[in-house]
Amino acid sequence: MSITVVGTMAFDAIETPFGKTDKIIGGSATYAAYAASNFVQPIQQISIVGYDFPQEELQAMQSRGIVTDGVVIVPDKKSFFWSGKYHLDMNTRDTLITDLNVLADFNPNVPESYQGSEFLMLGNLVPAIQKKVIQQFNKRPKLIVLDTMNFWIETAFNDLKEVLTMVDVLMVNDSEARQISGEHSLVKAAKKILNMGPQFLIVKKGEHGALLFNESNVFFAPALPLEDVFDPTGAGDTFAGGFIGHLAKTQDISFSNMKTAIIIGSAMASFCVEKFGTERLKEVSKKDIDTRVQEFVQLVNFDITLV
Amino acid sequence: MSITVVGTMAFDAIETPFGKTDKIIGGSATYAAYAASNFVQPIQQISIVGYDFPQEELQAMQSRGIVTDGVVIVPDKKSFFWSGKYHLDMNTRDTLITDLNVLADFNPNVPESYQGSEFLMLGNLVPAIQKKVIQQFNKRPKLIVLDTMNFWIETAFNDLKEVLTMVDVLMVNDSEARQISGEHSLVKAAKKILNMGPQFLIVKKGEHGALLFNESNVFFAPALPLEDVFDPTGAGDTFAGGFIGHLAKTQDISFSNMKTAIIIGSAMASFCVEKFGTERLKEVSKKDIDTRVQEFVQLVNFDITLV
Repeated sequence: MSITVVGTMAFDAIETPFGKTDKIIGGSATYAAYAASNFVQPIQQISIVGYDFPQEELQAMQSRGIVTDGVVIVPDKKSFFWSGKYHLDMNTRDTLITDLNVLADFNPNVPESYQGSEFLMLGNLVPAIQKKVIQQFNKRPKLIVLDTMNFWIETAFNDLKEVLTMVDVLMVNDSEARQISGEHSLVKAAKKILNMGPQFLIVKKGEHGALLFNESNVFFAPALPLEDVFDPTGAGDTFAGGFIGHLAKTQDISFSNMKTAIIIGSAMASFCVEKFGTERLKEVSKKDIDTRVQEFVQLVNFDITLV
Repeated sequence: MSITVVGTMAFDAIETPFGKTDKIIGGSATYAAYAASNFVQPIQQISIVGYDFPQEELQAMQSRGIVTDGVVIVPDKKSFFWSGKYHLDMNTRDTLITDLNVLADFNPNVPESYQGSEFLMLGNLVPAIQKKVIQQFNKRPKLIVLDTMNFWIETAFNDLKEVLTMVDVLMVNDSEARQISGEHSLVKAAKKILNMGPQFLIVKKGEHGALLFNESNVFFAPALPLEDVFDPTGAGDTFAGGFIGHLAKTQDISFSNMKTAIIIGSAMASFCVEKFGTERLKEVSKKDIDTRVQEFVQLVNFDITLV
């Protein structure tokens, strides 16, 4: 029931209305792996870092059951670096710096020891690379989840469409779903996207929650109303990690269980945004997660009597 | 268990990406009364119209148990008229025309026959008039629900603050909640607003659902994901009508029952937006409502097992 996570491990420098950080550890695969490791281990990581990525950080991940055999360390280049500034509403941000560094050469190889992995989380990357990862598995994983972003929809749409035919779950935000489908209505967007390949579509709406669609059903999960969203960076990747973590733990990829997995993902994301970077994610316990999930139950639970 | 509804009865001319209308019947009290009349009757209407308001429309309302003794007909003036155009995302609109007409003289009197009303819905109006209506009741209604808008927050905030101390439920949209409280976080906004008087706050977020707060609890109700939102006009008032209708029917104003009432309100609003004006609201049956409410149950229902 191992999970393979593909994505970035990187440095971020973040400015929010609540403060700013120097370079801290970030990256889609970092957040996803930390979140997923609460549910199953090992998490098999595929990524690339530079000489400047701290050894202690790799050890911290390994101590949580995150296998780093698939993390290439490039001795003469720096790690991927992103810097951004969030606006007051926390829903929009400006990218200040994007230094690709090692990411420009990222050509992942799936280690032999990762073969047989049943769950594959493809973080946001060049679609051609996502495809290459899928093709390297001798046996297709039981469930493949794909993330992408507006940049690839605009610059590599044909490649992206090909990858869509190879995956089970597409996980994007509302504007990306609209962009892929050309439909403003998310219901119509979902129909079109489900016709492009994936059996399931998850539309992330940030503070407005998330929607899960398959051919005949829709499910809505709220975001937990928080006093402060301290730093939204990584919330989507953390959501993805919690989602696939729960599915791998339960070995059940039905629509019904995906509903629960989305609540678990939302709970994990609600921790992520409480502090800068991965700080909060590293300290939450299983008890914290259970308590938080119960808050979601309370948040949406109601009794109904018919009219 | 009668409900008194105070608000506008008016003409609207609406343009949406799906089409445009000539003058059709609108107004906050119209939508609220139509929605509420599915749950209890009579609905006691307080409003003002001009000579041009169709007699058949009043009769149609009366045939649904909406009492119009408190609707003043001004013989030499026109009814309130609003014209607006929705943008593609349906969340924003431009007001093209606002002709106050009779509304400029609205000074409502609560008819003697309305005394003893247990539920009072105060639609969006000048706060001083909302206050005057409350004061005319010999016995305070069991539950008073208040709607307002940015215009009054900006131009009559002191009056509005006074009214807030006199009501039980404030029902506003997210930007109004932020404006009243000066807080961006809706959780913080809720705390401040609940300190200003009302015991309950409902924050309407349009297609993103609604939140219910009291001092110690929060509940989230989604909006139903629809293929097309045809015309959002009146959705908030319809929501209010369904909400107070369910509470009056069940005679239970606990937080727990308000959660159900919000789902009912959301279901009614989901009908409202399917056609122009009140058209869809007039044709829905109890069976339609039950079916729609069950869709909400399916939309948010999940099983949870702890980590």
